Amino acid sequence: MAITSTSLTTREKLARAMAAAARLAQLSTEERNGLLRGMADVIAAQREKILAANRKDLERADVPEAMRDRLLLNSERIARMAQGVREVAALADPVGEVLAEWKRPNGILIRKIRVPLGVVGIIYESRPNVTVDVAALCWKTGNAVVLRGGKEAARTNQQLVELLTGLPGVPEGAAELLDSSTRESAQELMRGRGMVDVLIPRGGAGLIANVVENATVPVIETGAGNCHIYVDESADFEMADRIVINAKTQRPSVCNAAEKLLVHAGIAGEYVPRIVEKLVRAGVEVRGDEAACRLSRQVKAATEGDWLEEYLRLCLAIKVVADVEEAIAHINRYSTKNSEAIVTANEVRARKFLRQVDSATVYWNASTRFTDGGEFGFGAEMGISTQKLHCRGPFALAELTSSKYEIIGTGQVRG
Amino acid sequence: MAITSTSLTTREKLARAMAAAARLAQLSTEERNGLLRGMADVIAAQREKILAANRKDLERADVPEAMRDRLLLNSERIARMAQGVREVAALADPVGEVLAEWKRPNGILIRKIRVPLGVVGIIYESRPNVTVDVAALCWKTGNAVVLRGGKEAARTNQQLVELLTGLPGVPEGAAELLDSSTRESAQELMRGRGMVDVLIPRGGAGLIANVVENATVPVIETGAGNCHIYVDESADFEMADRIVINAKTQRPSVCNAAEKLLVHAGIAGEYVPRIVEKLVRAGVEVRGDEAACRLSRQVKAATEGDWLEEYLRLCLAIKVVADVEEAIAHINRYSTKNSEAIVTANEVRARKFLRQVDSATVYWNASTRFTDGGEFGFGAEMGISTQKLHCRGPFALAELTSSKYEIIGTGQVRG
Repeated sequence: MAITSTSLTTREKLARAMAAAARLAQLSTEERNGLLRGMADVIAAQREKILAANRKDLERADVPEAMRDRLLLNSERIARMAQGVREVAALADPVGEVLAEWKRPNGILIRKIRVPLGVVGIIYESRPNVTVDVAALCWKTGNAVVLRGGKEAARTNQQLVELLTGLPGVPEGAAELLDSSTRESAQELMRGRGMVDVLIPRGGAGLIANVVENATVPVIETGAGNCHIYVDESADFEMADRIVINAKTQRPSVCNAAEKLLVHAGIAGEYVPRIVEKLVRAGVEVRGDEAACRLSRQVKAATEGDWLEEYLRLCLAIKVVADVEEAIAHINRYSTKNSEAIVTANEVRARKFLRQVDSATVYWNASTRFTDGGEFGFGAEMGISTQKLHCRGPFALAELTSSKYEIIGTGQVRG
Repeated sequence: MAITSTSLTTREKLARAMAAAARLAQLSTEERNGLLRGMADVIAAQREKILAANRKDLERADVPEAMRDRLLLNSERIARMAQGVREVAALADPVGEVLAEWKRPNGILIRKIRVPLGVVGIIYESRPNVTVDVAALCWKTGNAVVLRGGKEAARTNQQLVELLTGLPGVPEGAAELLDSSTRESAQELMRGRGMVDVLIPRGGAGLIANVVENATVPVIETGAGNCHIYVDESADFEMADRIVINAKTQRPSVCNAAEKLLVHAGIAGEYVPRIVEKLVRAGVEVRGDEAACRLSRQVKAATEGDWLEEYLRLCLAIKVVADVEEAIAHINRYSTKNSEAIVTANEVRARKFLRQVDSATVYWNASTRFTDGGEFGFGAEMGISTQKLHCRGPFALAELTSSKYEIIGTGQVRG
């Protein structure tokens, strides 16, 4: 059984994680899946301990109201956490997959094999289910995980990590929880060159910007989403209504919610008043450019800042554009390259939009809300990458791996 | 024809590169290959202009002798540069490849497509052929390139970039050369968040460490190679000799040259004196641990620093190990995770070594010198990645791409 590591320094914890990564990488698929089933069992069995730790976190005076719901665990949420781990255990194992194999004229055989990344670092905020989700995804793929959660969830996270690392067969250091009460632990994680193979920030724009600015270890940038929907001249209005209302209102606080609506000038006179009416009825504050303001009194004037802003609430800005080219140009200038959609019956314009919009996920006649590992059928999600290196868009198990070349010869040397 | 951009600021050049990336990404395979054939033609046709610029660089008083050969161009080298570009033009185009495609139960069709990275930044040292190689690889894959070469090669690079960007059909900004006379241009490139999709340092350890330390844009770390060869108890000595001598002496200044030799204790008494004799005859300075020193008077005592050092010259350190497990542990502790080899006739130990050595390329009975895009059959090489994110080991065209999800629906919204 692994000892609890709260008294260790951050560097010591990173060194333990490196040693654990080497051991986890050598486990078989069945052994790693066994660890995950053990995780699910202990979470379900020790529900009361977890709830008690969570209550202590919630009792702290300085937890803002908005954070309470994200921090709160209850029996149902704990059951869902355990169920999620069981589902990850049942997914196919990407590790060991032969990605390519070929022989060279000199007779050497080259084989490219999928291997774990090694040590995966995560910096996140208040939701304690992330602790369990991320540990499950990392162990599933043979990686050690170093967790730096929010200080609000410190006791809950401590309890969860103690339960997970106490399981039989878990290598010491397989999940290391860093001190959330100081900034130094996050700094050391971000600058743990040679000890951390990837660092993934999960949280708001400030957290992500801080990591990108300060990290010297490789980072996968996640999360921001100033998403656009372009309603083309030849759109089916009912379909457009359905997609716009869903993408804006179904869950406005997430990164794949729509923030901007672009409308073709040829239909703006009819479509803008129609959709503004529906949006306002759904509780959405609507802003817009001059043309949109002229078309509806319920539209307030947007400023330049509106086109860049990710509202993450029931607010939307409308711009009237001359054609699909102007829509594409506006999106490529202002979007965060997460998710954008075109609504049109015109295939030529749809193909142009799909091809030329430089975003991770581009939709034709569907809601931007589908940008999600679960909705893509991955069975899990580690995050949504908004960078182009390593992976782009929703990512899960396969993206927690790297590759390695194994070469077999018969004494070949280079001439 | 694109105008020369020497009078622009670094930020202006990055903005031009972004605009060019959007245009390059829309070119067809044939159009991009046409640009490369034009590159090859103009390099061959304007040989005298290039040689004249190169002579001016060479005439500068402050070029150290070691750098002169790397900087020097002649007719043969220029012809080889042009030929290299023609070969890249003839390679298969990775852009547009459908990496995966599937339908979800709700009817949306998800297609994952290979797309250009966008803007690729390179910081490199004195070899001007890198300018042409890298521009060819980037344009081939629909990327714009921002080049920050060494100040010794400033005039040669300027002449080359002028010729390339002056070709008909090349979007303005497709290759931007940054000012090599100040550190600021490199700093701005490293911190061009939102403008640079990947930055690749090509050069010595100091250059790479500087980029990793200061960059806020995604980086592919390349190059370091403290490579090991482990000669097992059951090795064929003649094969071991051939591999050790080749890996150490064929080109000692490169990252895949061997720097350390581990020898199984069971054969050390016979093998260490034998290989030391051959190494010394080949002009190699040999260092070693106590056991190796006892076995040959020609071995000087190694210090702890030797096990970490990448000599990049005719020097090698020998350590006697008890078994393959000790060899693996030593390598995973001291190597830079580039290339390592085992020489053995024992398949069980070979498989263990291939699986447990955590390096980008691991060999069984072959020289570490094969770690190279050309030797792998890629037809080109952008570098050798020593990180695990995005790509690992030798990389070329495919690794200069990202992916994008195109999703086609019929009005689906999320429930």
